[in-house]
Amino acid sequence: MKTRISLPDVASEQDTRGVALHAVGIRELRLPVTLRTPTNATQQVVAVADLSVDIEAEQRGAHMSRLVATLYEWASTPRTPAEVKALLETTRDRLGSRAAQLQMRFHYFMEVPAPVTHTLGWLDVETAWECKLNNGASFAVSYFVFPAMTLCPCSKAISEYGAHNQRALVRLWLYTKDKLPRLPDEYLPLVQASASSLDYPVLKRPDEKFVTEHSYDNPRFVEDVAREMALRLSEREELSGFRVECESIESIHNHNAFAMYESPLRK
Amino acid sequence: MKTRISLPDVASEQDTRGVALHAVGIRELRLPVTLRTPTNATQQVVAVADLSVDIEAEQRGAHMSRLVATLYEWASTPRTPAEVKALLETTRDRLGSRAAQLQMRFHYFMEVPAPVTHTLGWLDVETAWECKLNNGASFAVSYFVFPAMTLCPCSKAISEYGAHNQRALVRLWLYTKDKLPRLPDEYLPLVQASASSLDYPVLKRPDEKFVTEHSYDNPRFVEDVAREMALRLSEREELSGFRVECESIESIHNHNAFAMYESPLRK
Amino acid sequence: MKTRISLPDVASEQDTRGVALHAVGIRELRLPVTLRTPTNATQQVVAVADLSVDIEAEQRGAHMSRLVATLYEWASTPRTPAEVKALLETTRDRLGSRAAQLQMRFHYFMEVPAPVTHTLGWLDVETAWECKLNNGASFAVSYFVFPAMTLCPCSKAISEYGAHNQRALVRLWLYTKDKLPRLPDEYLPLVQASASSLDYPVLKRPDEKFVTEHSYDNPRFVEDVAREMALRLSEREELSGFRVECESIESIHNHNAFAMYESPLRK
Amino acid sequence: MKTRISLPDVASEQDTRGVALHAVGIRELRLPVTLRTPTNATQQVVAVADLSVDIEAEQRGAHMSRLVATLYEWASTPRTPAEVKALLETTRDRLGSRAAQLQMRFHYFMEVPAPVTHTLGWLDVETAWECKLNNGASFAVSYFVFPAMTLCPCSKAISEYGAHNQRALVRLWLYTKDKLPRLPDEYLPLVQASASSLDYPVLKRPDEKFVTEHSYDNPRFVEDVAREMALRLSEREELSGFRVECESIESIHNHNAFAMYESPLRK
Repeated sequence: MKTRISLPDVASEQDTRGVALHAVGIRELRLPVTLRTPTNATQQVVAVADLSVDIEAEQRGAHMSRLVATLYEWASTPRTPAEVKALLETTRDRLGSRAAQLQMRFHYFMEVPAPVTHTLGWLDVETAWECKLNNGASFAVSYFVFPAMTLCPCSKAISEYGAHNQRALVRLWLYTKDKLPRLPDEYLPLVQASASSLDYPVLKRPDEKFVTEHSYDNPRFVEDVAREMALRLSEREELSGFRVECESIESIHNHNAFAMYESPLRK
Repeated sequence: MKTRISLPDVASEQDTRGVALHAVGIRELRLPVTLRTPTNATQQVVAVADLSVDIEAEQRGAHMSRLVATLYEWASTPRTPAEVKALLETTRDRLGSRAAQLQMRFHYFMEVPAPVTHTLGWLDVETAWECKLNNGASFAVSYFVFPAMTLCPCSKAISEYGAHNQRALVRLWLYTKDKLPRLPDEYLPLVQASASSLDYPVLKRPDEKFVTEHSYDNPRFVEDVAREMALRLSEREELSGFRVECESIESIHNHNAFAMYESPLRK
Repeated sequence: MKTRISLPDVASEQDTRGVALHAVGIRELRLPVTLRTPTNATQQVVAVADLSVDIEAEQRGAHMSRLVATLYEWASTPRTPAEVKALLETTRDRLGSRAAQLQMRFHYFMEVPAPVTHTLGWLDVETAWECKLNNGASFAVSYFVFPAMTLCPCSKAISEYGAHNQRALVRLWLYTKDKLPRLPDEYLPLVQASASSLDYPVLKRPDEKFVTEHSYDNPRFVEDVAREMALRLSEREELSGFRVECESIESIHNHNAFAMYESPLRK
Repeated sequence: MKTRISLPDVASEQDTRGVALHAVGIRELRLPVTLRTPTNATQQVVAVADLSVDIEAEQRGAHMSRLVATLYEWASTPRTPAEVKALLETTRDRLGSRAAQLQMRFHYFMEVPAPVTHTLGWLDVETAWECKLNNGASFAVSYFVFPAMTLCPCSKAISEYGAHNQRALVRLWLYTKDKLPRLPDEYLPLVQASASSLDYPVLKRPDEKFVTEHSYDNPRFVEDVAREMALRLSEREELSGFRVECESIESIHNHNAFAMYESPLRK
């Protein structure tokens, strides 16, 4: 039987094809991660992660098990979003590469009160980070999906009574100047101000009456939500750019409607 | 090199563990199938199919490639839903089993006119068949998902104006007396009569006005839709039983509401 | 403006259609739940839950917001799986119904060592509970999906060298005599003994060598895995019945193979 | 009652927020489309489409129903991939916009023979087109997912016998010089030459023996497949650029491995 010491290391072999690869790594690894939130609380999330490095033309392959080990070690203690940078630096150094990339997807819970009775509940916000560490070309994109409501201005205007409305997903892609990812907390108020209404986890009857009337008083096309969000996001100092999209799960159709705005990039 | 004739047939070996298996087969095979519709037209669908047989305790395995071949042969010519029976008989006989089962999932398109302008469009109805051929225990379940609309009676009653509404999925599981699967065509009118409104592929402004007002005039909880459907399905002579469910993609929440009714079985 | 006290309660209205409903409730509510594990540790999971009750023919609707509130309250403290029973009792009583049902889906992490180097990693096991409280007809089904490996005995037997192998999903549906749900911990060894190999989160080269040779020494059809699991599960005293399925993501095909065994029910 | 003629047209209103939108349209519309293939045959696919236009700052909204109508009309007759350009031109003109975009996703079937017995079967290739018509900035990306097989060179080298292997997805993003989308037919041979083996719809025992031995003789990391594909795609005259990725559904892990190469853009 071969002993451990003698096992060949094929990934370290010389490659002669002359093709450098931009990303080599693991994908769809599910693991628990504890995050430090903006209020310095902790929240444990279940993350699905992709972690990769670039490899030069001469190197046959990446040592995949080191990527798994690096990710586990990073996740063994509570982390702020900013500490993603440390994960990428460790990854790059341990794998002997020049660039490292992380994609991490998780559901983040925000405690949201009902509008009238203030009953608390968990609003779950789909979140994803795409972060790259690369000399002179690093970036971080934070992606959030906020559940909200659109009430159709056209339907309201043409009808004697009523107006079709529906759940709508407000998607944000945020490029931060400091190249560090963010949590969704501070962006929820922008959605609340831009859509016909926010979605709420618990609504008692007085809350439901409020949401019904408030959304009727604030009809919004997906175009309106995208524009309102664009104006509000343009004022955010921490962003070097953003994309925003509103997609409504049309109540009257079996397809959706959407509108998208992409900001120019700034320093 | 081994020649073809000499290749061992491991699946045909004797098994000594004494465990008969209820289903052995292929799953998630995607293939084109042309169906004959109730109006004797044809519609090509893209089906995802599972096909399986039972095997006795003594038999090590099933010959999976025969299942693929049988399915391809059946699908090489246009088929009525009733011809699923022939597929199951051939499968059972070719595999030398006692029972054969098919699950087939596809999107079926129905041409639906807008309510006022009568503009035509394709309503896609998610469809699945689960059919089993087994001495004395054969069955066929036809499953359909119809997109519709619910307008909340509570929201309407408690609010000065407006009412939240949303896309809702009306799901049917139909057990037919003749143990043959069905297409969704004849069940659409039941959904149209039971929900606040049907969903439509194309709506011009006069249509949108109609749907808005019609749904406001016909508020329905998911409970109401389930009950209305239950009453209508109970009158269907071709059914030996059914299950019906309405699930609404709540516009005011990030979760859904649902109601389900299950009929007693009859001969 | 209407005051809170005067808001009509449409769900409490009398229904005259004469149709009792088997399940009315909320679906796809995502929330954090902390579970007490068999070793008396705690594990926080992100659950997606459906909670419902039956309603009698005379009652127009269920109070959906009470279901959300009941679930949140239950999840506000760490819970053993057995405490699902208390959740169902509270739900039934607060909603004034006779039956209550829960479906809860989450990923559960088990710390699993690599076979040679014993490097630890998280194996994530997809888990779902379906529990019903109903006079004389209560039940609990625990559903687990274990990732494993199958190496094809036919491929090994007919080839000069090598054998195709692939990731395979071993799915268990367990019906427990005490009608309480379970966590997957104690069932992992059964999968390890039944498949060609378990899947592992981290494998260093000596581990990879072991898994490669071990799986080649233990070729298993999906039929073999289903039978091995059936024999092992039949000996479990806590079960009143079970279903087991092995589905392999065939490396040589773009479709899967599967085998299923369903036990007779016992007291 | 309001008559048709008098219905207000809210989408045509003047907007004063000063925000032009990059994309406004419909999403997830499912419809049947008949394609003319490179051999001048026809293949009907079930497409899921997003169709959108840009709108200027002054315009409140897009007329969504015109997008649906335009798509239906285009799909009412068999189409070559190149005719996507006509769809985009019509869309742009009918909506009075400067740019139009299409995303269309479908499964495309290729008839593929088994390697020894030449038994025919359908290989389904997930396909997506993203096409944009915009003065000076038009593009077309064709995306394909080919199912193939990777056999691990490291596992083969370190083990006395056997080698883990698995289904792997070879993903291509092709940017064409003529800015017209493509079908996958001509790219299949590149995958066949680059992976350890192609995946096949039907394999009889002599075929299975061949695939087992052939893949053992051609071990490939995901890195190898990405590089082999990169070399082959670099020679394609019709491309102005491409991205290629190989992702293996690791048989030994519950996560995947992947490698990605992105070409420089050329005229």
